Amino acid sequence: MDRRSFLRTSALGGSAAAASTLAAPAYAQGKRTLTMVTTWGRGLAGVHDAAQRCADTVTAMSDGALTVEVKAAGELVGAFEVFDAVSSGQADMYHGVDYYFLGQHPAFSFFSAIPFGMTAQELNNWYYHQGGQQLQDQLTEIFGLKTFLAGNTGPQSGGWFRKEINGPEDFQGLKFRMPGQGGEVLAKLGASVQNLPGGEVYQALASGAIDGTEWIGPWADEKAGFQEITKFYYTAGFHEPGLGLSLATNREVYDSLSPALQSVIENAAMSTNAWSLSQFMANNASALQRLQAGGVKVLEFPDSVWDAFGSAAMEVVAANLNDDLYKEIHDSYMASMRNSSQWISRSEGAYSTQRNRILG
Amino acid sequence: MDRRSFLRTSALGGSAAAASTLAAPAYAQGKRTLTMVTTWGRGLAGVHDAAQRCADTVTAMSDGALTVEVKAAGELVGAFEVFDAVSSGQADMYHGVDYYFLGQHPAFSFFSAIPFGMTAQELNNWYYHQGGQQLQDQLTEIFGLKTFLAGNTGPQSGGWFRKEINGPEDFQGLKFRMPGQGGEVLAKLGASVQNLPGGEVYQALASGAIDGTEWIGPWADEKAGFQEITKFYYTAGFHEPGLGLSLATNREVYDSLSPALQSVIENAAMSTNAWSLSQFMANNASALQRLQAGGVKVLEFPDSVWDAFGSAAMEVVAANLNDDLYKEIHDSYMASMRNSSQWISRSEGAYSTQRNRILG
Repeated sequence: MDRRSFLRTSALGGSAAAASTLAAPAYAQGKRTLTMVTTWGRGLAGVHDAAQRCADTVTAMSDGALTVEVKAAGELVGAFEVFDAVSSGQADMYHGVDYYFLGQHPAFSFFSAIPFGMTAQELNNWYYHQGGQQLQDQLTEIFGLKTFLAGNTGPQSGGWFRKEINGPEDFQGLKFRMPGQGGEVLAKLGASVQNLPGGEVYQALASGAIDGTEWIGPWADEKAGFQEITKFYYTAGFHEPGLGLSLATNREVYDSLSPALQSVIENAAMSTNAWSLSQFMANNASALQRLQAGGVKVLEFPDSVWDAFGSAAMEVVAANLNDDLYKEIHDSYMASMRNSSQWISRSEGAYSTQRNRILG
Repeated sequence: MDRRSFLRTSALGGSAAAASTLAAPAYAQGKRTLTMVTTWGRGLAGVHDAAQRCADTVTAMSDGALTVEVKAAGELVGAFEVFDAVSSGQADMYHGVDYYFLGQHPAFSFFSAIPFGMTAQELNNWYYHQGGQQLQDQLTEIFGLKTFLAGNTGPQSGGWFRKEINGPEDFQGLKFRMPGQGGEVLAKLGASVQNLPGGEVYQALASGAIDGTEWIGPWADEKAGFQEITKFYYTAGFHEPGLGLSLATNREVYDSLSPALQSVIENAAMSTNAWSLSQFMANNASALQRLQAGGVKVLEFPDSVWDAFGSAAMEVVAANLNDDLYKEIHDSYMASMRNSSQWISRSEGAYSTQRNRILG
């Protein structure tokens, strides 16, 4: 897929309708306002927070040279339209999650999440020090974007169900919300998978349009209110062990900025990456306790379900290996993950085992 | 300990001699040069890298308003003199590790490392979202500093020994380099503990002044060359499960900067925190393989040694609880660590167990 054919598609796509509502970048007295669209409903815990912090940090550090205005999903364009809007220059930047755009290129999964893939720390290791960021540049420049990691949810929970999951056969016919390659895995197990943006999930669950959903983890899920509808909550999940969030800037806009302002954007994204991950990780334990106290049954999938997830995941991740760029990114990602996980197991894993044994 | 009595001590201390060699901050055409001293020998892998990246990022983002010049340990003041130099205004900022300054206040251990304490992610959770940073402000303003986390080594290795450690009695009389509360733990086991800055460890080990040492982890240790002298390497350690590095700016210098430049320093530190941790974590696995291939025997301490570490660590960490600020920080830290570790075990722990089982 090259950029020209993408832009042709884009011109026919949903975002074209929104073009007239988007202002061109404003210039006044050397100051510039950039519009950030997002895949997040306004106020969604953690994810909207990361977008807003990223925007505010660029504004603060640039001393007014840049003012970033956040337009949440639906305020200028819909959640799934942000990619087209920024790629075509109708908006300046987006904050979001790139597995919503696997239709543009399946390799976007590696910079968001793949099933049985990297944890947040493993993703950072690869991204900042083992070639991940350079591969992301190769991928995103096809679409006229300059993208940085700008947040991470940490390991996501298996999700919310109306009844217990006792074996892989329980996914047969289940109407379940899960985006990305994780959703493709559930489809292989017979689920009817839906890809809804976060702001639309509660209503779909409440109306019965879906039987269950994953969203993020205890804290963000509690804020979304899924415990009001479903009572079975699976903590560890296979699908998004460390979901990377992206800040993508239109390439021409990015290239028009001074090196100092480019560095401001890059470091606002990188600092938000650290801030965001720790926000999720700091809030989940207490939220899980509240959910349990409120009557939610907290469970783990049995090994038979994990095994089924595993077999299907290997098929899904391998399905695009005939695409050269996908394969190049895949091979780099997998080599780095093996490397990181060996060390983490030997260091943090061994330490945590001893600490838990001794401190109880 | 109040600031006045600290400054009185400082005026009599080692750094006073260095004062005349340090220039006052330079002002020229609205541009300002800040001098960053460090606790690191020039070029020490990972730690000097973090200092240099932090400095370069401030310089790049501020578009020349600030130029940060790095002076490694010994270039202006010695590694252990940076605290006094910045506190008294002789230098503008330091990058280093704050457990070198437990003599100033024992609570600096919580922002670097305590034995059986937080991993890097747990430290970030507490620091950015559960009150850690505000407590650090309370502590560092006593000394006229404004400090941010600005790097993390990840979990440190147990270290280098000339012979195997089979029980806690093997530490009796051992001349071992370990700073901070970890060193106090080894002293309780009968070791003769030395606190040397990184740049002086190789020579001490080579000359026989010490029998063994910990430094950081496989990558940084390999670069330091300890495998040329000792052949027994213990990976998981009890003493620094996620060592935080600090960027401390003289408080008056910091307060004199515009809000934009203050934000630049804060976010350069935060982005370096993410960048630095992933640099260590990305490089350790391959380094460990090279060390093993070169004849180093890689081991883990037996449970009897971990138990002895644990008993002594509890005494060491509790020894300063009669200091009100130490106790306030300690209680906040411990509550956050319990909270974080519960969630990490339930999410990343459970996930990694399943991934390792399924992917092998």
